[in-house]
Amino acid sequence: MQIVADNINIMNPRVARALESLDPEPVRTLARECAAGGADAVDINPGPVKKQRHRRMQLLIEAVQEAADLPLWLDSNDPELVRIGLDLCRRTPVINGFSLEPSRLENMLPLAVETGCRIVGFLLKADGHVPPTLNERLETFQELYEQSLRSGLDPEQLIVDPISVPLMWEDGSAQGQAVLETVAHLPQLAGHPVETVVGLSNLTSSSPPSRSRAVVEPAYLAMLSQAGLNRVMLDIRRREAVAAVKFRRELESGGILSWAELDAWLNPAPPK
Amino acid sequence: MQIVADNINIMNPRVARALESLDPEPVRTLARECAAGGADAVDINPGPVKKQRHRRMQLLIEAVQEAADLPLWLDSNDPELVRIGLDLCRRTPVINGFSLEPSRLENMLPLAVETGCRIVGFLLKADGHVPPTLNERLETFQELYEQSLRSGLDPEQLIVDPISVPLMWEDGSAQGQAVLETVAHLPQLAGHPVETVVGLSNLTSSSPPSRSRAVVEPAYLAMLSQAGLNRVMLDIRRREAVAAVKFRRELESGGILSWAELDAWLNPAPPK
Repeated sequence: MQIVADNINIMNPRVARALESLDPEPVRTLARECAAGGADAVDINPGPVKKQRHRRMQLLIEAVQEAADLPLWLDSNDPELVRIGLDLCRRTPVINGFSLEPSRLENMLPLAVETGCRIVGFLLKADGHVPPTLNERLETFQELYEQSLRSGLDPEQLIVDPISVPLMWEDGSAQGQAVLETVAHLPQLAGHPVETVVGLSNLTSSSPPSRSRAVVEPAYLAMLSQAGLNRVMLDIRRREAVAAVKFRRELESGGILSWAELDAWLNPAPPK
Repeated sequence: MQIVADNINIMNPRVARALESLDPEPVRTLARECAAGGADAVDINPGPVKKQRHRRMQLLIEAVQEAADLPLWLDSNDPELVRIGLDLCRRTPVINGFSLEPSRLENMLPLAVETGCRIVGFLLKADGHVPPTLNERLETFQELYEQSLRSGLDPEQLIVDPISVPLMWEDGSAQGQAVLETVAHLPQLAGHPVETVVGLSNLTSSSPPSRSRAVVEPAYLAMLSQAGLNRVMLDIRRREAVAAVKFRRELESGGILSWAELDAWLNPAPPK
């Protein structure tokens, strides 16, 4: 399973200040923390950028690329910002992403068809709502998949995000279970392996501070990995979740488990 | 998923002393800790009992039954001790267990056929060795399953233990992965649901002290639950693992997740 760090986003005050003052250094520092913390890719979510759009996207992307040799995920619902990003990426990025919402289907999906980049497809209904049940998620997948093929996307370009919602929602546990089952069912439905990603940070957002998070996050991620998840998007500071990914890889590689190495993932040395 | 506490065993110095001095109180205290800690059943492993066999089995079983209203698992490779236990249990116990080893097949399996109790079938070869790979585990299951039916066991009485081995073994990670896949494959092989149990304590035995245990145990248990595991045998003091079971139940029940309740499972109040 690959780790996509979601730390470079506009909700992070360090990123907001960097964009405001046009200072790349805080973003470089964050990118170094992601790389040192075990990220395989870095998601860049600039939020809505009204002014100096090119300059600000450039600042983010170049700062990350200077600090970390990792592929980028361009996380925006603004196709113009994604297009700016596509031109600046040194390594092939992932477009994050599109859904059945008409604007995204019309303006974002073609960017992937045109460039050959992978693109995340969110299992959201055309009105932007989350399909709450397993069946509705699977129906949404089928529609999304057919629309993708019709638009000329190679099925291998598609990375499906079944949309993790906060456990605090009234049906949060039921949806958490539905996401697990969605991941497990997709290959059967598509007739071939399906690349998937889940955003782990959503799971505990708006939850009260709790020691149980350090169990819930790695446990849920472990269930997802067993269901077949390929990639997880997470806050690289959630070390228990990162260690769970590392443990999963140890199981799959069949090597001798190194507790010292696992401990180092739990408490990584600060980046140089 | 049900929790079977493995705390009442001869390797526990409190149990050894209780058996030596014929004092039931430490065993009662342990049983109260298991019940307060969330156990659904209590495994009783008296070890080899040479003298005062009836009196010592009676001490263990009555002490646990006085302190906790939970079903017992009679964990011994000595059919005579199990028979003594069967007579003393108030609730239907589980016999733990048998394997393809001839002595167990001949002397232990008939006790389940005779009494109608459930019995754990260990996926061990006839020579007592662990079948290291997925395929060998599945072959062992088929042989065990056929032997059980031939002896008159109802398939519903069988609880399969695919044998978890220490991660520290040279092929520990590979076997950890094989156990996950075995649990996932059994229903397909049997043609119906198969009850399963895994001993979590084995996983980290002989491992050095490590903070990662608090991630590895609940993460592995979460993977097992996603693979379809019904029961886990564990040290009730491993609270992260117990909390992972609680979290799994919350997902499956689809209720509103209570972080306070999860926190209480991580740090249970001491038994009264």
